[in-house]
Amino acid sequence: MPLVADATEKTGQTANGEPLGDLRRLVEPDLKKVNATILERMQSPVALIPQLAGHIIAAGGKRLRPILTLAAARLCGYEGERHIGLAACVEFIHTATLLHDDVVDDSHLRRGLETANAVWGNKASVLVGDFLFSRAFQIMVADGSLKVLKILSDASAEIAEGEVGQLLTANNTATDETAYMDVICAKTAVLFAAAAQVGGVVADEPEERELALRSFGMNLGIAFQLVDDVLDYSAEQAALGKTVGDDFREGKITLPIVLAFAQGDEAEKAFWRRCLEDLEQTDQDITEAIRLMRKYRALDEAMDRARSYADKARQALAPFPDRPEKTALLDLAEFTVARRF
Amino acid sequence: MPLVADATEKTGQTANGEPLGDLRRLVEPDLKKVNATILERMQSPVALIPQLAGHIIAAGGKRLRPILTLAAARLCGYEGERHIGLAACVEFIHTATLLHDDVVDDSHLRRGLETANAVWGNKASVLVGDFLFSRAFQIMVADGSLKVLKILSDASAEIAEGEVGQLLTANNTATDETAYMDVICAKTAVLFAAAAQVGGVVADEPEERELALRSFGMNLGIAFQLVDDVLDYSAEQAALGKTVGDDFREGKITLPIVLAFAQGDEAEKAFWRRCLEDLEQTDQDITEAIRLMRKYRALDEAMDRARSYADKARQALAPFPDRPEKTALLDLAEFTVARRF
Repeated sequence: MPLVADATEKTGQTANGEPLGDLRRLVEPDLKKVNATILERMQSPVALIPQLAGHIIAAGGKRLRPILTLAAARLCGYEGERHIGLAACVEFIHTATLLHDDVVDDSHLRRGLETANAVWGNKASVLVGDFLFSRAFQIMVADGSLKVLKILSDASAEIAEGEVGQLLTANNTATDETAYMDVICAKTAVLFAAAAQVGGVVADEPEERELALRSFGMNLGIAFQLVDDVLDYSAEQAALGKTVGDDFREGKITLPIVLAFAQGDEAEKAFWRRCLEDLEQTDQDITEAIRLMRKYRALDEAMDRARSYADKARQALAPFPDRPEKTALLDLAEFTVARRF
Repeated sequence: MPLVADATEKTGQTANGEPLGDLRRLVEPDLKKVNATILERMQSPVALIPQLAGHIIAAGGKRLRPILTLAAARLCGYEGERHIGLAACVEFIHTATLLHDDVVDDSHLRRGLETANAVWGNKASVLVGDFLFSRAFQIMVADGSLKVLKILSDASAEIAEGEVGQLLTANNTATDETAYMDVICAKTAVLFAAAAQVGGVVADEPEERELALRSFGMNLGIAFQLVDDVLDYSAEQAALGKTVGDDFREGKITLPIVLAFAQGDEAEKAFWRRCLEDLEQTDQDITEAIRLMRKYRALDEAMDRARSYADKARQALAPFPDRPEKTALLDLAEFTVARRF
């Protein structure tokens, strides 16, 4: 399985230049076990399953969500091994949603590589996603904690609700900030929250601390998604060879658009509707979109919100004693809103 | 939710003229509660979810799998209410796989009605399937039995494996009987098995009886799928206004084809390859396919196998005392292989 061996190597790097370095170094031995568990548990007598799953799992993901589980457990002084399997679960759930997302968005590239649906077709991607999702539940059942099962089945249902919600807000310029926040909480932040909370559950932390970890994950996840949505319009992204304006071209309604649209005059609102509802776009429209976002400080405003959620995430860790994991998680929250690419 | 109210009414009928009558009458009060639970638990603040889920759940399904759970529990003398929620779970898992199947097969009709993907698109069908699947696990978690969770998460993983396996056997005339049986066990019989077994688990039956129920479900499921695959080539089906040869047109390799292909001469093998691998078909080819199946008794042979599995299913119920549920389940196995449409 050379694909996954590659992935294991990649996780040792500072992926995409991000200073996950400290955090990754702290959890490195655990993360190696997580990668081994992922490799072992994605096997199936049906050879296409590990082939396709290996492709996406190896495709350079940062393993951010399982790292949250690992770091949260260690932050709580947990010395056992349960967090390994559960971190793999979290990654399987995430991977299943990515496979289905790429089908739903008809994406052909992810992190610069061909998507699984581009290589093996939509059918296989849908079904292997279903397999990984089921496999995640098998791992949880073997772990045996109904509390963990509740946290992650609740998260899965909310993720699906968020994804359907995103379908409904797409191409709809009437989407307001509340609808946008509902979608990103559900589709992104809830799994960050669950991943961190599970670390506290295996460590048998009192409820207050378990919920503090959940709050850290939730606020971090919101900040992460807000920044992701801003970066889709960032020039630095273009300088790094990434595409600018993918969300715009798809008519995805993110916070910068919500804010710029709300303050726009009638002509500007007509521009947004043509581009995002009718999807009638010229190559120059993305430049005009960014100009309007700057005019109304929509990107700055969205980054301000992101910073405020990152601060909340940091504050959530107040009850925990100073440990290297705490410092690394605080740094992660800070970096999430400092990254420019 | 008028759609689901319709469905509740339909379940009281002898659907498609099938003599599920006795069984359905026996579990009718429970089945009403299952339908109410389905209606309640498919709700979501995201309105498209109950809309789309209601469409497929109401589309005239026979509720065969939840009925197995209900009847198995009652056969064991179970007097509680846990089988209601778990029967709803089983139907949610089944519905999620149907939604994904219709996307994977690009189907536009199911039971004479437009499929959910035809009405709302593939994206929504994939995501609502994910939601129903997650919701099934939430219900199981609330029920609180790790044993049930294991049975149904194992079943879900196997179903996904079976569906991927089916992708791989499609258009492949080298598929042998073992590969075909693996696929139908996993994609169909495993959920029948799990549905029946769960009825025994809630009744706290000794393991031997629980496994007898599982064996009943498994063998019934195999018989059911074998018959389904034969009926795709049956003239009676045509007389009832259903389409003949859907599997053939898709290049799906089912047992009648496996058997006819294996016995065919080179010219006949070339015919099967052209039709099923290259999908180069004329309107007359289905007639020729049926002629070749008759020549080698492939349809009769497949029905013989189905009858043998139905017998095994009936034998599996031997340990159980005579009760109306037992008689009705024995009749169900008999009917499954007697139905001609």
